[in-house]
Amino acid sequence: MTTAERIDKYEPLTEQKVIQLVQQLRLLPSDGALTCEEIGDGNLNYVFRVIDERSQQSLIVKQALPYAKVVGESWPLSLNRASIEYQALRIQGELTPDFVPKVYYSDTTYAITIMEDLSQFDILRGKLIDGEHYPNLGKHIGEFIAKTLFFTSDFYLDAETKKQRVKQFINPDLCKITEDLVFTDPFFDHDTNDFEEELREDVANIWDDLLLKLEVAKLKKLFLTRSDALVHGDLHTGSIFVTETDTKVIDPEFAFYGPLGFDIGQFIANILLNAITKQQEQQRQLLQLITDTWEHFSETFTELWKTQGQEKYTQVDGYVEHVLTETFEDAIGFAGCEIIRRTIGLAHVADLDEITEYSELLSSKRHALSLGKELIFQRSKLTSPRQITLY
Amino acid sequence: MTTAERIDKYEPLTEQKVIQLVQQLRLLPSDGALTCEEIGDGNLNYVFRVIDERSQQSLIVKQALPYAKVVGESWPLSLNRASIEYQALRIQGELTPDFVPKVYYSDTTYAITIMEDLSQFDILRGKLIDGEHYPNLGKHIGEFIAKTLFFTSDFYLDAETKKQRVKQFINPDLCKITEDLVFTDPFFDHDTNDFEEELREDVANIWDDLLLKLEVAKLKKLFLTRSDALVHGDLHTGSIFVTETDTKVIDPEFAFYGPLGFDIGQFIANILLNAITKQQEQQRQLLQLITDTWEHFSETFTELWKTQGQEKYTQVDGYVEHVLTETFEDAIGFAGCEIIRRTIGLAHVADLDEITEYSELLSSKRHALSLGKELIFQRSKLTSPRQITLY
Repeated sequence: MTTAERIDKYEPLTEQKVIQLVQQLRLLPSDGALTCEEIGDGNLNYVFRVIDERSQQSLIVKQALPYAKVVGESWPLSLNRASIEYQALRIQGELTPDFVPKVYYSDTTYAITIMEDLSQFDILRGKLIDGEHYPNLGKHIGEFIAKTLFFTSDFYLDAETKKQRVKQFINPDLCKITEDLVFTDPFFDHDTNDFEEELREDVANIWDDLLLKLEVAKLKKLFLTRSDALVHGDLHTGSIFVTETDTKVIDPEFAFYGPLGFDIGQFIANILLNAITKQQEQQRQLLQLITDTWEHFSETFTELWKTQGQEKYTQVDGYVEHVLTETFEDAIGFAGCEIIRRTIGLAHVADLDEITEYSELLSSKRHALSLGKELIFQRSKLTSPRQITLY
Repeated sequence: MTTAERIDKYEPLTEQKVIQLVQQLRLLPSDGALTCEEIGDGNLNYVFRVIDERSQQSLIVKQALPYAKVVGESWPLSLNRASIEYQALRIQGELTPDFVPKVYYSDTTYAITIMEDLSQFDILRGKLIDGEHYPNLGKHIGEFIAKTLFFTSDFYLDAETKKQRVKQFINPDLCKITEDLVFTDPFFDHDTNDFEEELREDVANIWDDLLLKLEVAKLKKLFLTRSDALVHGDLHTGSIFVTETDTKVIDPEFAFYGPLGFDIGQFIANILLNAITKQQEQQRQLLQLITDTWEHFSETFTELWKTQGQEKYTQVDGYVEHVLTETFEDAIGFAGCEIIRRTIGLAHVADLDEITEYSELLSSKRHALSLGKELIFQRSKLTSPRQITLY
């Protein structure tokens, strides 16, 4: 591949072209011994792993596709998300280098990001389904969220820089996915929804619940209008890689300036979706993980506020407590929406869908729907993660 | 002036150059009979009136200056605000043509906007000080705010267009003026503040009032983070031109995507600042003007919501009422901040400063400070503009 070809125009890469590209960029030591495999199981991107068979070093080449695979080529998506992902990874990498993959290269023409290979890690969702427990996870995720939010917010950044960041991370295509699939379609009889026929009555109850829809409307409005900080935007357990000791947050292509509570809410929701399927002792452990995460988040955020707050009002008593109270309430509401949409919307979770006993699958999904509703309705009454139960 | 000169680079215009420019653009019929006068009394711009003495037609050439005049050249300001003003006038002109000046031309190099001359209009502030009453004013301002907010919000625009507008109206320099001069400096012992020495104790009480500062912190956060709709951003009574029958809103250079309640709040504040200086019957009339404005705003907004809402949740019972309740609460809070900053901050209002009797001036300013505080503290308890009193 010549440089002229490389920068000419977008095309989906093949394994052979990926090898040529990595050779050309001299990102691995042994040019002649590279192998490549497409390992993506996502819906929106190719993910190639390139291994240098001689040095056993490796890396990942991720390429954005111009459409969502899940519905064929009929759902076009801006390639700009590759650039958003790269820029978000760069910022997150500066703020929390331990918790994101290293980035080596990006190219807007091909919509690719080349980054650290995390093959030694497992995807958290699968491991939670297997019943694994990660004692550092709450600490790591709490710290990741606290630092990425605080340092990109008006509490720390000067107003000009923050507004330029808001502009830089305007992300209409990917936000639209969330606006539709998380906040809208599941609450109306929309053809993207996907649920077992046996659940129709439960689902119809949601569509008919005007009080619930009013609360979801308010939460959707927060998502549409609150430019608080740079959020990851898709922080479910499939976006988190783990080992016994380490945690990495990947795939920030949904990143944008959004509400402080959004990432925590999505994380809590996906832990609860797993907890629903478990026995009591594991449920207790998963609820403890939620408490750990919130507590590490709020402690880190408060510490940063007190030591590094640049906004003059960060000196005023009670302000950080107000911000955290509001963030918690919003997070619980967002969690409720996420739980409902992962149960009856377009994109499901394996935690529920892979339950082998069909009657148990149905009862777990009913459980999820009632839990989601409770969280949305009760969000202003809950004041601590310790009050979250599975109802 | 040749075209090459004209597009070469920014320079402050002179009356002679303005005439050459208008001739060149053929915006008035008689090229040979143009006269020009700089009539600006603002702090940030030149305002030239060009008259065709033969046809008696005229127009306004407004040029942004690269600094704020009020503090000499030491406060640099982006010329981009001329482009923001032009784009805001275009959008407002499409949505509410009766209430904004027509725009004929804009040029980003010179940072100029050429627009309708409103010499037959009076500035509202001066006329309110004189005790004049405008029976259509509440209706006009309520309609202007309702239409400009609704049609630029997520309730009407598709998500992509709205996000592009947010990007287009990122306005750091002018927002910074409001962030500092409205929401921050007056509440701290800052050297931009300006007040009579006799008021020092009252002012110190504000600086020491931690509960007040906590509430102002929350209101400032709304201003910094809520991208609801395209707000005018500076809707005081000096930005409104009136005749017996007509109303024009000018100077949207502070326009940005901000909270729904901001414009109404600034308008209410400036009416109250005038009402403080009046006798009982005129006070009653000015409070009625506030009620009229809110009622016309909320009726128009609700009508547009029901007939033209594009967001799916606009169909949900109770949502528009929720949005209006929140908007009213925020507006009252913003009004409180504006009243305080116009009394002790950098930029004062003639309504108070031109009171001839010094003891009356001091008591009116004390009145303003206590009214501002009350509005900030009571904003969540007030539910109707009829409950607003002068305390």
